[in-house]
Amino acid sequence: MKVVTFGEIMLRLAPEGYLRFVQADKFDATYGGAESNVSVSLANYGLESVFVTKLPDNEIGNAALNSLRRYGVNTSSIVRGGKRVGIYYLEKGASQRSSKVIYDRAYSSISEADINDFDWDKIFDAANHFHFTGITPALSSNCYELCKVALKSAKSHGLTVSCDLNYRKNLWTREQAGKAMRTLMPYVDICIANEEDAADVFGIVADHTDITQGKLDNDSYYKVAKRLKEEFGFKYVAITLRSSRSANDNDWAAILYDGERVYTSKKYPIHIVDRVGGGDSFGAGLIYSLLMKYEPQAVIEFATAASCLKHSIEGDYNLVSVAEVLRLAGGDGSGRVHR
Amino acid sequence: MKVVTFGEIMLRLAPEGYLRFVQADKFDATYGGAESNVSVSLANYGLESVFVTKLPDNEIGNAALNSLRRYGVNTSSIVRGGKRVGIYYLEKGASQRSSKVIYDRAYSSISEADINDFDWDKIFDAANHFHFTGITPALSSNCYELCKVALKSAKSHGLTVSCDLNYRKNLWTREQAGKAMRTLMPYVDICIANEEDAADVFGIVADHTDITQGKLDNDSYYKVAKRLKEEFGFKYVAITLRSSRSANDNDWAAILYDGERVYTSKKYPIHIVDRVGGGDSFGAGLIYSLLMKYEPQAVIEFATAASCLKHSIEGDYNLVSVAEVLRLAGGDGSGRVHR
Amino acid sequence: MKVVTFGEIMLRLAPEGYLRFVQADKFDATYGGAESNVSVSLANYGLESVFVTKLPDNEIGNAALNSLRRYGVNTSSIVRGGKRVGIYYLEKGASQRSSKVIYDRAYSSISEADINDFDWDKIFDAANHFHFTGITPALSSNCYELCKVALKSAKSHGLTVSCDLNYRKNLWTREQAGKAMRTLMPYVDICIANEEDAADVFGIVADHTDITQGKLDNDSYYKVAKRLKEEFGFKYVAITLRSSRSANDNDWAAILYDGERVYTSKKYPIHIVDRVGGGDSFGAGLIYSLLMKYEPQAVIEFATAASCLKHSIEGDYNLVSVAEVLRLAGGDGSGRVHR
Amino acid sequence: MKVVTFGEIMLRLAPEGYLRFVQADKFDATYGGAESNVSVSLANYGLESVFVTKLPDNEIGNAALNSLRRYGVNTSSIVRGGKRVGIYYLEKGASQRSSKVIYDRAYSSISEADINDFDWDKIFDAANHFHFTGITPALSSNCYELCKVALKSAKSHGLTVSCDLNYRKNLWTREQAGKAMRTLMPYVDICIANEEDAADVFGIVADHTDITQGKLDNDSYYKVAKRLKEEFGFKYVAITLRSSRSANDNDWAAILYDGERVYTSKKYPIHIVDRVGGGDSFGAGLIYSLLMKYEPQAVIEFATAASCLKHSIEGDYNLVSVAEVLRLAGGDGSGRVHR
Amino acid sequence: MKVVTFGEIMLRLAPEGYLRFVQADKFDATYGGAESNVSVSLANYGLESVFVTKLPDNEIGNAALNSLRRYGVNTSSIVRGGKRVGIYYLEKGASQRSSKVIYDRAYSSISEADINDFDWDKIFDAANHFHFTGITPALSSNCYELCKVALKSAKSHGLTVSCDLNYRKNLWTREQAGKAMRTLMPYVDICIANEEDAADVFGIVADHTDITQGKLDNDSYYKVAKRLKEEFGFKYVAITLRSSRSANDNDWAAILYDGERVYTSKKYPIHIVDRVGGGDSFGAGLIYSLLMKYEPQAVIEFATAASCLKHSIEGDYNLVSVAEVLRLAGGDGSGRVHR
Amino acid sequence: MKVVTFGEIMLRLAPEGYLRFVQADKFDATYGGAESNVSVSLANYGLESVFVTKLPDNEIGNAALNSLRRYGVNTSSIVRGGKRVGIYYLEKGASQRSSKVIYDRAYSSISEADINDFDWDKIFDAANHFHFTGITPALSSNCYELCKVALKSAKSHGLTVSCDLNYRKNLWTREQAGKAMRTLMPYVDICIANEEDAADVFGIVADHTDITQGKLDNDSYYKVAKRLKEEFGFKYVAITLRSSRSANDNDWAAILYDGERVYTSKKYPIHIVDRVGGGDSFGAGLIYSLLMKYEPQAVIEFATAASCLKHSIEGDYNLVSVAEVLRLAGGDGSGRVHR
Repeated sequence: MKVVTFGEIMLRLAPEGYLRFVQADKFDATYGGAESNVSVSLANYGLESVFVTKLPDNEIGNAALNSLRRYGVNTSSIVRGGKRVGIYYLEKGASQRSSKVIYDRAYSSISEADINDFDWDKIFDAANHFHFTGITPALSSNCYELCKVALKSAKSHGLTVSCDLNYRKNLWTREQAGKAMRTLMPYVDICIANEEDAADVFGIVADHTDITQGKLDNDSYYKVAKRLKEEFGFKYVAITLRSSRSANDNDWAAILYDGERVYTSKKYPIHIVDRVGGGDSFGAGLIYSLLMKYEPQAVIEFATAASCLKHSIEGDYNLVSVAEVLRLAGGDGSGRVHR
Repeated sequence: MKVVTFGEIMLRLAPEGYLRFVQADKFDATYGGAESNVSVSLANYGLESVFVTKLPDNEIGNAALNSLRRYGVNTSSIVRGGKRVGIYYLEKGASQRSSKVIYDRAYSSISEADINDFDWDKIFDAANHFHFTGITPALSSNCYELCKVALKSAKSHGLTVSCDLNYRKNLWTREQAGKAMRTLMPYVDICIANEEDAADVFGIVADHTDITQGKLDNDSYYKVAKRLKEEFGFKYVAITLRSSRSANDNDWAAILYDGERVYTSKKYPIHIVDRVGGGDSFGAGLIYSLLMKYEPQAVIEFATAASCLKHSIEGDYNLVSVAEVLRLAGGDGSGRVHR
Repeated sequence: MKVVTFGEIMLRLAPEGYLRFVQADKFDATYGGAESNVSVSLANYGLESVFVTKLPDNEIGNAALNSLRRYGVNTSSIVRGGKRVGIYYLEKGASQRSSKVIYDRAYSSISEADINDFDWDKIFDAANHFHFTGITPALSSNCYELCKVALKSAKSHGLTVSCDLNYRKNLWTREQAGKAMRTLMPYVDICIANEEDAADVFGIVADHTDITQGKLDNDSYYKVAKRLKEEFGFKYVAITLRSSRSANDNDWAAILYDGERVYTSKKYPIHIVDRVGGGDSFGAGLIYSLLMKYEPQAVIEFATAASCLKHSIEGDYNLVSVAEVLRLAGGDGSGRVHR
Repeated sequence: MKVVTFGEIMLRLAPEGYLRFVQADKFDATYGGAESNVSVSLANYGLESVFVTKLPDNEIGNAALNSLRRYGVNTSSIVRGGKRVGIYYLEKGASQRSSKVIYDRAYSSISEADINDFDWDKIFDAANHFHFTGITPALSSNCYELCKVALKSAKSHGLTVSCDLNYRKNLWTREQAGKAMRTLMPYVDICIANEEDAADVFGIVADHTDITQGKLDNDSYYKVAKRLKEEFGFKYVAITLRSSRSANDNDWAAILYDGERVYTSKKYPIHIVDRVGGGDSFGAGLIYSLLMKYEPQAVIEFATAASCLKHSIEGDYNLVSVAEVLRLAGGDGSGRVHR
Repeated sequence: MKVVTFGEIMLRLAPEGYLRFVQADKFDATYGGAESNVSVSLANYGLESVFVTKLPDNEIGNAALNSLRRYGVNTSSIVRGGKRVGIYYLEKGASQRSSKVIYDRAYSSISEADINDFDWDKIFDAANHFHFTGITPALSSNCYELCKVALKSAKSHGLTVSCDLNYRKNLWTREQAGKAMRTLMPYVDICIANEEDAADVFGIVADHTDITQGKLDNDSYYKVAKRLKEEFGFKYVAITLRSSRSANDNDWAAILYDGERVYTSKKYPIHIVDRVGGGDSFGAGLIYSLLMKYEPQAVIEFATAASCLKHSIEGDYNLVSVAEVLRLAGGDGSGRVHR
Repeated sequence: MKVVTFGEIMLRLAPEGYLRFVQADKFDATYGGAESNVSVSLANYGLESVFVTKLPDNEIGNAALNSLRRYGVNTSSIVRGGKRVGIYYLEKGASQRSSKVIYDRAYSSISEADINDFDWDKIFDAANHFHFTGITPALSSNCYELCKVALKSAKSHGLTVSCDLNYRKNLWTREQAGKAMRTLMPYVDICIANEEDAADVFGIVADHTDITQGKLDNDSYYKVAKRLKEEFGFKYVAITLRSSRSANDNDWAAILYDGERVYTSKKYPIHIVDRVGGGDSFGAGLIYSLLMKYEPQAVIEFATAASCLKHSIEGDYNLVSVAEVLRLAGGDGSGRVHR
């Protein structure tokens, strides 16, 4: 199974532990981004996972590429050139104090990539699936065009396509996002969103919900899923539902709509180690279990368990095995020592 | 707005993470103390915050001073000389294991400071407020005299004065504290205390309370506040109420009595990163919001939210912004990521 | 009071914090093992604690020995020689993700120790108590024979003997364990087990229990304790009862059966720092309080409080004092700061 | 004495110790830049040192500003706004392996600063000296204009002006540098250069020199200094002379030409801790000793000793006292312990 | 160009900095071994580098494999199974104190690998070169047989073969080594040795040499090279010559004999960061430059410069680029900053 | 062989690597002091080494005691009580920058120890040798009296006595030192000094010496040794001779005078890791080799080689074995890897 993912990988700079930015004299330096995170997860599950991006031809670019290679991602389609690796600064929150992300991603090599940088016919050769997120077209008009070209090529190669809506307000307005994403949705088979994306991108709002109080209404999200399906004709719509009790403690669940039924996962109370990449790990779990032709309930349980585990792992990447995900999805969440 | 704070800044030596003293081969070295913590908070909120102390003329003294300067405190009134920077060792507790503090603060430069070391007229020039705590007069008889001189000067300059009772049993007995503090209270407008101080210093006990079981009775503390007001004629009495369920999890709330009504803050369940300086951050929030002329309910909400956030921050200093405090005081304690 | 403990001390290699093995480029290097952990606890409580093992005559062996000496263990009976210090790799779990232990302990010096390596008569001279666990005889047939010889000598010197069943499936099968341990039990006065050991080693199963769901039935364990007593004639049977809600949060309690009554400890909800060595610290608490001739209820409270505290301490060793244990056993679990 | 310095402060990200970029999973995060380094040195020597730049209004900007405040720099003239803090990545070389610097400074707040961002009349009020380097005008055409405006204002306020030529080939070509810098030199009294700058910027080449072999010819540099003086009418020309034997070991000396004589400093064999900022610390030493009206030989000895010491200090900033510099300049380079 | 390397990769555990084993409570955990080090170097130079070994199917095995993948090694021929990853402990020496290596490599998966574990026909398909060292046959009789089978297959596929003699006295005696290696030399085209190997393995001693005093006689080594060539018919013999002045400072040079002439490299005075893997990096440089068909003098300069640079890099792997090696080989050893 | 050492053990707080005090936010926390360092060395060489001091009954006192126990020192004669563990802050110098020591040792438990705290008859029972240094009597008049009492008791038990003059200008003046030490010298058999002590304490100056230039004249020190012998009747006088070329590079040698001949050691050029405790390790080497009845030349070579090695080890303690010292004393200073 060969899956191609297209997007950005950034340098992530995070103070150690719970230190605030102004206290830090060291940053943990890891690499990640919504799309690269999915690609690492899929490689980790044993698929042939190809990540497509552009990285500058310097040592920081090398280090980003190595971080993918280390976990088994096929990096042979990564183009080298351009000026810089995008950066995001992450300050980990605790208790009532929120985590903070400061983006410094403008002018990255991928955001300035050219339409001719990638040979999609070659990239998609023998591939089964293509994944991207709403961040990639938001990076620049070039990237938007690149997404369109890639999607057309993917479809012409007969691939299934998934997209995580992933709205980022620092990259574009709701209006810009809505307009652009509407032109890309026709190529998408599987739509992935969190509890806010559908409202941000397409104005489809869940009732009875106040995320600042950690209150989510499941029934409302069933309706959101159905409206997404109706409007864009997706084969699957999956929505993650995060109830944030504090920066340390969240509840985590998800729903899957296959056009006929809504499947709801178990709900996990999570004591968080690192929540960045939670949504991405859900997407990867969904893609993997759909490609493995799991039953819908098993699909949503796999994707939710996979992303539950991500919250216990430092860094963007969800470094868990299929066996570990299946054990949790199968009901053992006791966290007992394995010897 | 210029606020002057007088007291001690110590070197704080803490094993990394949850290591015990006997396991440590490194100490995190930061600086703090009940009074310097307030001063940093006020600088952080944008006030002109002047800290007054005495530090030895060596590199450890420099480092203590730099830690204040780094966060914007005006250090131009700090006198240099004397023998040593006081030290406190901190071992962070977890679950049922208590945090431990070992003081090694005797013979510090400030404790041996001379009555002639400080020119209060100059220090209080154009100032609005003076803050000290019950620790400063406990350091030495010199320091007690210094407090008296400073208080008289503050009053003659028309400043409002706040005092955090801050009883420390290693520095003096309850009797000594009571006797000395009674002579200083006439100069104080705003009295700040925690759930134990009033009993320790003035023998005013809250009924129905067992702090080793984390049981506090709010009504009893209303009475304590009123008795403090009656006895000393304070304009405001504020009391913090900590229910300690474990070393990791505390409930945190506070009350404010303005002579007419008791205002009670929201109660925060806190998952603790570092609780040292919690009370000091409350004092700073109180001073700031009173100086900003917030309504009494807003004052107690600001002070409590500010000090709630302190528990999520490593070190003595409460490095939060006014905006962050107001967001929590306004009701968003979900800890969601801010991008 | 002189207590002799016989068994293994290993190098423990653990990634920092919650990092997974594949992320680690540093390992915290400490030393520990079921038996050495007990020995350190007893030295810490002020007893003369002698640890008997074999360590290679190289610097890693020196470091293991020094770790014992540092905390006051008498290491003069440790034999030097053989090839290697056994290792265990520990990955700390979080939330729904389990901790992982990878053992690399084969061919260690102690596992290949010879029957002539130890002079038990000399070792047991003036001793009061002998402790071993079910791991020692499982290491090798040599070690099994060594246990037998030691037990006979202990009995001939009039020592009381305790054994923690400690079943390890990587070392032997349930059948092997059962067969071997049955030959050693006649020498044992005090039998210590966790909620799984009796079933694993002797096939004595507690009803109504599902450890993957954190469900334990106290009554069933009373029956297990009684059956152990009936079958092997122990003077005391103590069983720890861990309910694992997640890798971070466990409930912890224990029971003691003295042939007449079952004594049940308080139950502690624990927010875990490091749970390895929890059972060993229980054993040490039990041995100490029995040697001190505490009343049965005080014994089980002391042992359970001691082991509750262990969960808040990094590394295998339970570095708490008798005073700290008594404070918790006496009811103060609030974790308030001690100044 | 009030000295104003104008330029950039960047985030410096450096792998720990001698790790290469591709090995690093942590970066030491400090702040620095050619101009801010001078400003910190001057504050450290006890002058009133004002640093002028623009920093984004986010926490990374705060941290950069705090790093200046911590060491006593007056930051009240720093403008907040714009998009990002410039970054440079530093890999420390060793033996025959060179140090590497990767710049990621484009689009920084200061490089996009507006001509109206700074009120030079206010900034230069009561000031004695203005310092900038060849990097500032190279950042952008805006910055070039800002330099011109600042220089005119400085002259109209009667300040002396120093400039470190500091050629950076990543920012502009030799031709661009030469053209621009020629328009700024008329305002400059004191010209500072290293062994390559005069050739790079103005085409004034020292004969008999091969820097890749660590061979420098002093006589040739006397001629370079004289030609600089003749061409631009500087009052002082100072040139640092680094002979690089390896990444660990350099020889370091400097010359000062006052239009009449060339003064040559002692030559220091340096075992390097961190050589970044070496030239900047020389500039600061020069400015300080000239403002203090030292004799020319004392000036060049102070500046060279100061910058020699910088090589023993981690980070960009030269955290030495006047007393320490004078001790070395006075001849004690034995490095004996001071108790 | 495809190069296959066969041998071991171990976990390397090293105290931080210059700490001794008995001081360490952390180990830097990296991976390496004589053969894997060569494989990483070749991947780093852009060749297709295949590493063949056996690793246990656990997370420590995963981490070892990932360390190769991270730097571009093709790991698809690595067999998983067996019991453990071999370990070596490394204590870095300084000044007159020697570095210490403690091996704990017995019973590793590769040492117990079976003759049927590897399909050499498939592994050597389209390959150009095969490399192994004298350590591999020393691991076990199985490994010796595996080497013989691999060598026969390599020859039948027309590969050139290189061998680094790499005598390890902990693995076998000089007699055993000599006897075994003599049976393997007929398959070898390129023989690599350090200043001691030829004497240890084949009894070919260099005169006038005392390595404990850092005295090596070049002429004697010319004779050693010639005798090796005469005895075994190698196409090339290369010998590295280390003069150890102290644990920090070594001189490093090498000679190459092509059957006609002896080519001598420049001699580098090295200030050492980490000397482990120095010889391996020489071997990789030699293989690369011979495969690239450099002239003999260029070959020995490339290999020596590559290995000179290795001494400046932490860990076993020589993470330098071809460009960096060529710059040093070309004469720039000044270590100046590259911006 | 039982050796008793009497004096102080302090907490040593040192910034990591070459950071200055004002940069540090962590301190390496180890323990040491002139006398405890000797005691650890002797335990390390296999003697029964008893350290006598007083430490407060808190966890910092425990940690100091544990650091001795860890390396095999007999701590059973350490008295617990008093107020604090003395501290010294150490900033490691580099190149031309000196190391700095800031003492904060006043009011330590040992400095306030009472004459009745120690039972010297019991302590000296079965002992062979007593060691103290010039620091102990300088701590306080109590300590001076304690030294006198101990010396008298030592003599009455027939012990040999050694004293390292160790002048500390922060503790007393040259006059005070001279006066006090003259009263203690009659009890001393072996006098140890560095290149400055004899002049500081007894006014016996070596000619032709300028320590700030690293220039020492051996002949002059022969005369110093002889004068010390003549004046005080010592059996042995040993003087260490440090030529400090820079904070990183020192030459190190020593002389021994036995009343008949002066024996001069080899001279070692040392690249320093940590020079604190260098003199103490010399003293320990001297005591050990004299007790072992080495020949005088072997004594001075052993002591000098031992202390040469100390300079390569972090912390105060010289953690080397007899075998390692003998190897260096025997001539192998090449620092080659030991496998």
